[in-house]
Amino acid sequence: MASPSGALTFAAAHRSRFVAELADLIRFPTVSADPRHARDLERCANWLARHLRSIGLEAVTVVQSPGPPLVLAEWRHAPGRPTVLVYGHYDVQPVDPLGEWRFPPFEPTLRGQDLYGRGASDDKGQLFAHVKALESYLRTAGRLPINVRCLFEGEEEIGSPHLGPFLQRHRRRLSADVAVVSDTRMLAPELPAITYALRGDLGLELEVSGPRRDLHSGVFGGAIHNPLQALCDLVAGLHGAGGRIAIPGFYERVRRWGEGERVAMARSGPTDAQVLQEAAARDGWGEDGYSLYERTTVRPAISVAGIVGGYRGHGVKAVIPSRATAKLDVRLVPDQEPLEIERLLRRHLDHVTPPAVRSSLRRTRVSRPVVIDLGHPALRAAAIAYEKGFGKAPVAIRSGGSIPAVGAIQDVLGVSSVLMGFGLADDGIHAPNERFHLPNFDRGIATSIWFLDEIAREAFEGPAAAARMPAALAEEGRP
Amino acid sequence: MASPSGALTFAAAHRSRFVAELADLIRFPTVSADPRHARDLERCANWLARHLRSIGLEAVTVVQSPGPPLVLAEWRHAPGRPTVLVYGHYDVQPVDPLGEWRFPPFEPTLRGQDLYGRGASDDKGQLFAHVKALESYLRTAGRLPINVRCLFEGEEEIGSPHLGPFLQRHRRRLSADVAVVSDTRMLAPELPAITYALRGDLGLELEVSGPRRDLHSGVFGGAIHNPLQALCDLVAGLHGAGGRIAIPGFYERVRRWGEGERVAMARSGPTDAQVLQEAAARDGWGEDGYSLYERTTVRPAISVAGIVGGYRGHGVKAVIPSRATAKLDVRLVPDQEPLEIERLLRRHLDHVTPPAVRSSLRRTRVSRPVVIDLGHPALRAAAIAYEKGFGKAPVAIRSGGSIPAVGAIQDVLGVSSVLMGFGLADDGIHAPNERFHLPNFDRGIATSIWFLDEIAREAFEGPAAAARMPAALAEEGRP
Repeated sequence: MASPSGALTFAAAHRSRFVAELADLIRFPTVSADPRHARDLERCANWLARHLRSIGLEAVTVVQSPGPPLVLAEWRHAPGRPTVLVYGHYDVQPVDPLGEWRFPPFEPTLRGQDLYGRGASDDKGQLFAHVKALESYLRTAGRLPINVRCLFEGEEEIGSPHLGPFLQRHRRRLSADVAVVSDTRMLAPELPAITYALRGDLGLELEVSGPRRDLHSGVFGGAIHNPLQALCDLVAGLHGAGGRIAIPGFYERVRRWGEGERVAMARSGPTDAQVLQEAAARDGWGEDGYSLYERTTVRPAISVAGIVGGYRGHGVKAVIPSRATAKLDVRLVPDQEPLEIERLLRRHLDHVTPPAVRSSLRRTRVSRPVVIDLGHPALRAAAIAYEKGFGKAPVAIRSGGSIPAVGAIQDVLGVSSVLMGFGLADDGIHAPNERFHLPNFDRGIATSIWFLDEIAREAFEGPAAAARMPAALAEEGRP
Repeated sequence: MASPSGALTFAAAHRSRFVAELADLIRFPTVSADPRHARDLERCANWLARHLRSIGLEAVTVVQSPGPPLVLAEWRHAPGRPTVLVYGHYDVQPVDPLGEWRFPPFEPTLRGQDLYGRGASDDKGQLFAHVKALESYLRTAGRLPINVRCLFEGEEEIGSPHLGPFLQRHRRRLSADVAVVSDTRMLAPELPAITYALRGDLGLELEVSGPRRDLHSGVFGGAIHNPLQALCDLVAGLHGAGGRIAIPGFYERVRRWGEGERVAMARSGPTDAQVLQEAAARDGWGEDGYSLYERTTVRPAISVAGIVGGYRGHGVKAVIPSRATAKLDVRLVPDQEPLEIERLLRRHLDHVTPPAVRSSLRRTRVSRPVVIDLGHPALRAAAIAYEKGFGKAPVAIRSGGSIPAVGAIQDVLGVSSVLMGFGLADDGIHAPNERFHLPNFDRGIATSIWFLDEIAREAFEGPAAAARMPAALAEEGRP
């Protein structure tokens, strides 16, 4: 069997080259939300494919799609051993507000132990940790201890709209025993975490339209309803007393967790003070009766991610805009169904939109909430790998975020995922000055090497696996 | 005395040149709200000054200012005759949303009888009608029937912040018996109007700030207050039941008009149906108990002219923005004091801003409400001039808009204004596809020629003038 020690030594010896290559990967401005970057996404996919070939992976393919291309690769010379599907995404969030970046977002800049750049943490750095682990094994042992398939996509940040159909078409080519997804966070640099729950995500654009053209707000102000004001009314009306969402029926299917789960969450998850510190916020907010950790994980939320309406330029313009749009980001929890929530919101808006304007809703992304069975045998391997890679066993936590691929891989391929995060809460993902804490890159590579080694020992069928599960992980404590 | 008939013949004969020159004037992208256009405003001021010199005006000066320069000119060779101050502005509104323009906003385009272009109606076309009237007189009679001073500014669309101090410094140079301002509308192409009331204007930027940096709306949504949502709450809370503004004390000083005024307004002003048609809107909106005309003229209003917050680009971005701003446009009526209203709003916001965010208010423009005495003798001259220029006597109307210069000229120079509008309600001022109805340009020039002629006959002191005032105008009916 291939030994992890050679791979670990190789990784440590080639550390500076690995970081330089990661910087090359970050340099591609792969903003999937912006069609003007389509060519950059293609170039990045091609670079990634060449890189995977160069480290010894096989059957490397850039697969065209209605969206950005997907990159596939594999190494399947360990018959009888498990197959792991490594998933990651090479696309990134938009960079605005650009003025708040200390360094140009696509010119990776090293400061202290952090590498700054859009996508450094989400998800290029985390994805690349696995790539470098595979390289380290292949260059030293000439083989991997297990079978591996890689699936890297370029539209995670816009909700992976084409991933489900793609997985359907390539089901056989992507069959695996378990997937590993590193697109989440740890609790602290020395405190690794395995994420076992993700919120669902429903992206909606709420447009309010009124007069056929923009009107002078002096001449008509007070007599013609202002779509931007009506939009503010509708957005304000989404929340009611006690921070609760005021859409009738919205909470109906929200799962009630038992007191045991709440106690376990309080023990293992971040405290209110920690959440506030991570957010660099002074005060919390939200639904009465729940901790901040609970509010972001087991309770749903609606955020206004942006409003487009009226004059946004320098100075003043006296105008009643003819239309205005809010980008809504609805985070859902078990057992809410995204499309049912959309129907409830439509019905609510039909009811509350004033007659002088019209409202409409357009869905921009959808993914369902996911909860991963803590009894899955791959989680044991991940826990051991973390303990060896970071010197500390991981905590099992819930995340408020969403990774559409995790649900799609489960639903279409029937494959469960291990969410092995190497990010930190203050990485600034989705914000200016995103960065990746490079010690996490190094330890992430080591953890991935140990994970491949541990998975090789794993049986994926029968009751044996669950029996080996650390009890504390199963009830969300620190193992 | 100089005869209007020669001037009228000259204007008709040179009509196509006049339109071509107006197009040249519109071609300058003089957006005063945008500092990137500072050089264009200077170029336009210089062009205008050269033009005024070329038509025979004297003492033409481009006066530097902390804002865009002002252009002054005069002709003062009619001793013993009245002096008229011709005011206009050469700056224009921003052009966004640019995508909705049928033609490029600064490439004037003729379609049918309309000249399209930003500023065509507001205010370059209306200003230029007076310039062409002066030229027509000077080129034919070699003189004007009265004394004239011209004052053309370049920051009306941002609230004329430097005009008051400028008038203070140049009080003697700008002394006059009356000002004529053509920056308003008529009721229809065949129905001229003299505007005798303007609302005041208070421009404010309301900023709400929360976390120090943008946050991931999945990771933190539900636990950290969203400044954009809080802004929507604050904006929504500005209005209460029955379309009334909910700021305590806001209506306290609003003048109650007698039943006579309301009857006169109903007789002379536009009906609800006409206001809706002009706005291209299906439904009215606003304060219960008032007609749409009243709501836009004798009742105050608050419009949200724009919101800047969160992601505004293509597609989706999952973010809780760290701050959000609303541009508020508060229109005031007698006897509201803009700065008192600002204080009331600050107090209200202090009271209702939730503790998890902070709100702040920045004033961007201010002008007080103006009511012009219908007994002013220049209004008689204007009414006769309109009757000769358009073949129809004007209606006296109130406008919901604001022209800061009118209050400043009154307050600083002690000079009343005649608001002789040549615009139309569907000119699309402040909106895409602004246009000027060229028959109004032609008739506006003729009306200005007749006005100069009529003013020459006018006595500006003593009771004689008021006695000659058409009774119907005085009570806001059609004379």
